Amino acid sequence: MKAISILGSTGSIGTNTLAVIDAFPDSFKVVGLSAGNDARALAAQVAKFRPRVVSVATEEAMKTLASLVDLSGIEAGVGVSGMTTVATAPGAELVVAAAVGAVGLVPTLAAIQAGKDVALANKETLVIAGEIMTREQRARGTKILPIDSEHCALHQCLASRDLGSVAKLWLTASGGPFRTRPAGTFAAITVLEALNHPTWRMGRKITIDSATLMNKALEIIEAHWLFGIPGERIDVVVHPQSVVHSMVEFVDGTMLAQLGRTDMRIPIQYALTHPEAWPTPLEPMDMGAALSLTFEPPDHERFLSLGLAKEALRRGGTTPAALNAANEVAVQAFLDGEIRFTGITEVVRDAVKAHETLDASTLEAVLDADRSTREQAREACVALRRPS
Amino acid sequence: MKAISILGSTGSIGTNTLAVIDAFPDSFKVVGLSAGNDARALAAQVAKFRPRVVSVATEEAMKTLASLVDLSGIEAGVGVSGMTTVATAPGAELVVAAAVGAVGLVPTLAAIQAGKDVALANKETLVIAGEIMTREQRARGTKILPIDSEHCALHQCLASRDLGSVAKLWLTASGGPFRTRPAGTFAAITVLEALNHPTWRMGRKITIDSATLMNKALEIIEAHWLFGIPGERIDVVVHPQSVVHSMVEFVDGTMLAQLGRTDMRIPIQYALTHPEAWPTPLEPMDMGAALSLTFEPPDHERFLSLGLAKEALRRGGTTPAALNAANEVAVQAFLDGEIRFTGITEVVRDAVKAHETLDASTLEAVLDADRSTREQAREACVALRRPS
Repeated sequence: MKAISILGSTGSIGTNTLAVIDAFPDSFKVVGLSAGNDARALAAQVAKFRPRVVSVATEEAMKTLASLVDLSGIEAGVGVSGMTTVATAPGAELVVAAAVGAVGLVPTLAAIQAGKDVALANKETLVIAGEIMTREQRARGTKILPIDSEHCALHQCLASRDLGSVAKLWLTASGGPFRTRPAGTFAAITVLEALNHPTWRMGRKITIDSATLMNKALEIIEAHWLFGIPGERIDVVVHPQSVVHSMVEFVDGTMLAQLGRTDMRIPIQYALTHPEAWPTPLEPMDMGAALSLTFEPPDHERFLSLGLAKEALRRGGTTPAALNAANEVAVQAFLDGEIRFTGITEVVRDAVKAHETLDASTLEAVLDADRSTREQAREACVALRRPS
Repeated sequence: MKAISILGSTGSIGTNTLAVIDAFPDSFKVVGLSAGNDARALAAQVAKFRPRVVSVATEEAMKTLASLVDLSGIEAGVGVSGMTTVATAPGAELVVAAAVGAVGLVPTLAAIQAGKDVALANKETLVIAGEIMTREQRARGTKILPIDSEHCALHQCLASRDLGSVAKLWLTASGGPFRTRPAGTFAAITVLEALNHPTWRMGRKITIDSATLMNKALEIIEAHWLFGIPGERIDVVVHPQSVVHSMVEFVDGTMLAQLGRTDMRIPIQYALTHPEAWPTPLEPMDMGAALSLTFEPPDHERFLSLGLAKEALRRGGTTPAALNAANEVAVQAFLDGEIRFTGITEVVRDAVKAHETLDASTLEAVLDADRSTREQAREACVALRRPS
């Protein structure tokens, strides 16, 4: 029995993780569950999986939770300290870090420092604090296993390979809903249009990030930290069918690609069972059927994010944290109808430009960069506010 | 310095192997070279690489060779015994087995029994004597590394993976020059048409095998012996661009594919440097360019070979040897203008059907099956002879 805690249990990755756990009831048990404000969904999970520790974002959500499910014998916490209790719960061997955005950083780092393996869906934490997280993880000999289709693919392609044999990492990108939309119409993109991803069903933040290609930008930075490959050897290729999840080019002229269905339960199960591979209850992809896969270079004119990620990695230090903070604020402002779609990357671009790069080896430094960039980005969003 | 002997040094794989060796002069040396009748090409190779042992197919070819190049200090042999001397030359660590057809069997087996690693391009040997070759290889702890793009791909995709995690091997097939040609016109296919392969430049025998898909049929049997996967879990998918060289489907729903340029120097270098990966002097494939990859199921009505290979594996024993023998005879008869294109698989089908399956654990048994099937197949070809 592998004991698992989940940060972000009511989100898309969280519920899919519980679906995988549910498929192997004799092999996994749930120790801790942490959610945001969806007390109703968490209550159902608590009733079913009976964890030892739970947490929610606010006291109010905790009251609702307690009114919906029997919490006797369950340790209950609130906010970041509650999340951290779930992340460091005694007995948990693997922590699935699936909170959204920077809020997951402190609890995820605490899990690593408590010697737990981390299955990481919350890529923002690595973007903000990659140096710290990988340093702590190496010091303790724990594993960080990526839960997203691209990095799971890279992880599998790289398995047991000497990093010296790697020429390049190729992240595939669906291209999002606006791959073929003319640049001139980008300012008019609505929230509903941006939330309509062509191949993956995901949460709102990551879906908007997919529409701006900022998700792929964050993935470049994530891949850098996960696999120790410099940013200039990580590239993106647009592959609208999302069948090939990513590729590794080796120095000997060979390339490996991982492919499969677009179902998050596959990379989640990969992370949960690593280094073993267990039979999936899902239908395999039918390679015997007719299939057409296309690849094309990304359009850096319409999508500035990829270039911004490369610049942030080149500048290093706290710059990726600033990029991420500005993006989180701008995406929320777009979802709230405050700024236009094109405003998102404008806010991020200006934040990266204005950011004074500092050493990123302490949590204080990156949290400071995160905080100050958020403030500036919020002001920038106000300045960009659409006439209502 | 890795010391290498080559069987079939003047053929397509042999010359490409010498090109790879030539690119790393400080890392490889040539100990032995064995060719068929092309004494002129071998003479140039001998002059350049100065091996310690050489062989050719006939005394006549040896006379020509001696007239063209100084053989002093070089041990020279003829026929299968000459090939075997090259294959077992003291000091050679790796033998590149690139002869064409059954003739390579005895020397290749001798190399394994002499404790040498084998880089195998001569797939017919595994088809005929897979049980014996893998038994001898396991007993001596030597390696058999495949030199063809498909099995090199499978080898790389399977690296360090537990065989229990493998659901299926997917061999890709270009589909050959007649992928879209109507069945009714198959009987009229000329030798020139059949020798015009769409994506790979190879020798004549393997090019005809590609046109009938018999090459892929032999590869199914080869994959079975190389990787220990039963025939019913080895499938073929037609992929006309030949960019994906083959794929492995795992039980957890993930798949790995190896891809790259269609240049045999890549799988040859893979075999020569395994388990290391050395930088190739070739240009890498440009994944940043627009690319379209298509996959479709093979047409078993027009191409009987795949079904015949599966049947031969199901029946086991000497049946794959019979299939191969009939095919070698029939391909030669087609190249000689004796039988029609469609006659090739007819001869093979009838030979498999008529073959009395025997135990294939001794060399005598498989060589007997090879010999008797060749005789019958030659008679069958005479019976099918086209009116001249």
